[in-house]
Amino acid sequence: MRLLITGGAGFVGARLARTLLASGTLAGRAIESLVLADQAPAPADLMADPRVASRVEPLLASCEALRDEPFDGVFHLASAVSGECETDFELGLRSNLDSTRSLLDALRHRVQRGAAPARLVFSSSVAVFGPDPALPLPAVVADDTLPAPQTSYGTHKLICEHLLADYTRKGYIDGRAARLMTVTVRPGRPNAAASSFFSGIIREPLAGEQAICPVSADVSHPVSSPQRTVEGLIRVYEASREAFQGRSALNLPALNVTVQQMLDALEAVAGPQVRSRVRFERDERIAGIVANWPRGASAARAARLGLAPETRFEDIIRQYIADCAGTPAALKGMKP
Amino acid sequence: MRLLITGGAGFVGARLARTLLASGTLAGRAIESLVLADQAPAPADLMADPRVASRVEPLLASCEALRDEPFDGVFHLASAVSGECETDFELGLRSNLDSTRSLLDALRHRVQRGAAPARLVFSSSVAVFGPDPALPLPAVVADDTLPAPQTSYGTHKLICEHLLADYTRKGYIDGRAARLMTVTVRPGRPNAAASSFFSGIIREPLAGEQAICPVSADVSHPVSSPQRTVEGLIRVYEASREAFQGRSALNLPALNVTVQQMLDALEAVAGPQVRSRVRFERDERIAGIVANWPRGASAARAARLGLAPETRFEDIIRQYIADCAGTPAALKGMKP
Repeated sequence: MRLLITGGAGFVGARLARTLLASGTLAGRAIESLVLADQAPAPADLMADPRVASRVEPLLASCEALRDEPFDGVFHLASAVSGECETDFELGLRSNLDSTRSLLDALRHRVQRGAAPARLVFSSSVAVFGPDPALPLPAVVADDTLPAPQTSYGTHKLICEHLLADYTRKGYIDGRAARLMTVTVRPGRPNAAASSFFSGIIREPLAGEQAICPVSADVSHPVSSPQRTVEGLIRVYEASREAFQGRSALNLPALNVTVQQMLDALEAVAGPQVRSRVRFERDERIAGIVANWPRGASAARAARLGLAPETRFEDIIRQYIADCAGTPAALKGMKP
Repeated sequence: MRLLITGGAGFVGARLARTLLASGTLAGRAIESLVLADQAPAPADLMADPRVASRVEPLLASCEALRDEPFDGVFHLASAVSGECETDFELGLRSNLDSTRSLLDALRHRVQRGAAPARLVFSSSVAVFGPDPALPLPAVVADDTLPAPQTSYGTHKLICEHLLADYTRKGYIDGRAARLMTVTVRPGRPNAAASSFFSGIIREPLAGEQAICPVSADVSHPVSSPQRTVEGLIRVYEASREAFQGRSALNLPALNVTVQQMLDALEAVAGPQVRSRVRFERDERIAGIVANWPRGASAARAARLGLAPETRFEDIIRQYIADCAGTPAALKGMKP
């Protein structure tokens, strides 16, 4: 089978690609070809695999050509992040809305010329939820909580969920939207996502660096490890339409955790000195965005697909440490 | 003040224009100019008013020019109807999605060049609701019922609700989305809306013609008269942002009525001979679409704005008969 991952050079996309290539199959079919589309080149280990091809350009520029390429399956992960979209409104429209529309239309045109519809998993986000003065947010957002996005990022994700559902209803794709929880611990440098600090307050102290937490310790948030997130995307792809249930988006599993619990877990895994590198310094812009996010999420439909969240944040930190085993600089703040 | 009505030559748009011109003011300001944008020319009585200008072209073609025109307020009613969008997917995307996006971007560009944001009322639809296998529909859909559209028309209306909310959040417009119930009794000929028969089974018998009801008598549906619908749009425009509550869409008031009750009302108003002109002949395509529509709606937020539904379908029929007073052919089936 031929697969496409948009955002395939990104953190989640590259991990998904590695997991798929290691397995060699998806939904019982051998993976013969895997195209990684992204604005950045794919990591070298992925490019070394003969099944992998890379396409380095904005997704919007790729879509015209995609009308002539037969893909059996697509993981559509490409996205500008929430902070970027708040500061650059047109970037958000272009990267998160117009690109998805173009991708769906490329797949539709193939079907209208007689091809079988591609299966497509879309990474939506817990950011679709948010309180509105007319719609207070429940303590825990469920699959069927009414979304009221409070960022352009969340708005565009929600709009794409509904485009996906309608293209699916019409038979142009076999689409499934899965709402990602905040994926942590991300490696590398902070990015412009308002949620970036959820990784930073773990990653930087482990690397021996100071970290700033821009929100108070009682902020609670639904998170997931990179590996559980990737497993969720694959399981959603492999589910039958009946098992997926309907065409509306589902929540991927979350561990609902406070900043305080995250730091306690950091201390339990890496010691008090590592934890002491985190300093609280409120950032009103970040705190304002995060205040509009859910404090927790449930995932009943994902549970029926056999997906479960982590139960302890310590396990998420240990996954990050294991991932960093080959790059000691990432962990230079930890005592051996 | 300068006003724009998109779809201003249509049934609801023209009635809204007449109501506004007769009042002469909106939200306490004198109406100096009223532009009616539509694909068809506006009715002659409207064009005779010196305050009215008409723009006859597809909305999408108008939007570039709108970037240079100062409007204080917009009623955005232009739309392809549900039946058309089901048979022509690209028409729906273009007319109901791309046109709205272009209109919002035209208004945004003015604000980004220093203009005050225009107030905009968008006519969304009860068609945003629909059952999904994962989301059964409640008997009565409320303002905060989770939408799961089952038509492209409903999908695009819902997407535009969320675009509107985000452009409002960013300060590019002062947007308010109001979900119209099925407006009945519409004059003229049947149109391609799947809901067209809700007017046809009253209008045609009153004109002495046979009518076909494509669904069974126990089908229940939320309806509103043209005049209550127009009053609702104006009230939503005039509400303060605080009174409107939040940025999410609200339901306009509905009379929840079965086909049986509609026909009983027809008999009560116009006699058994008029009623006998309605024949039941099931149309699977129409019945299938209607089966996915809500059987009733509530409108708590609209009620807090002072808006109430009709209480008897007889009153809706009498409004239609009064509207037809100048055109006896419309009522030639009624005994004097």
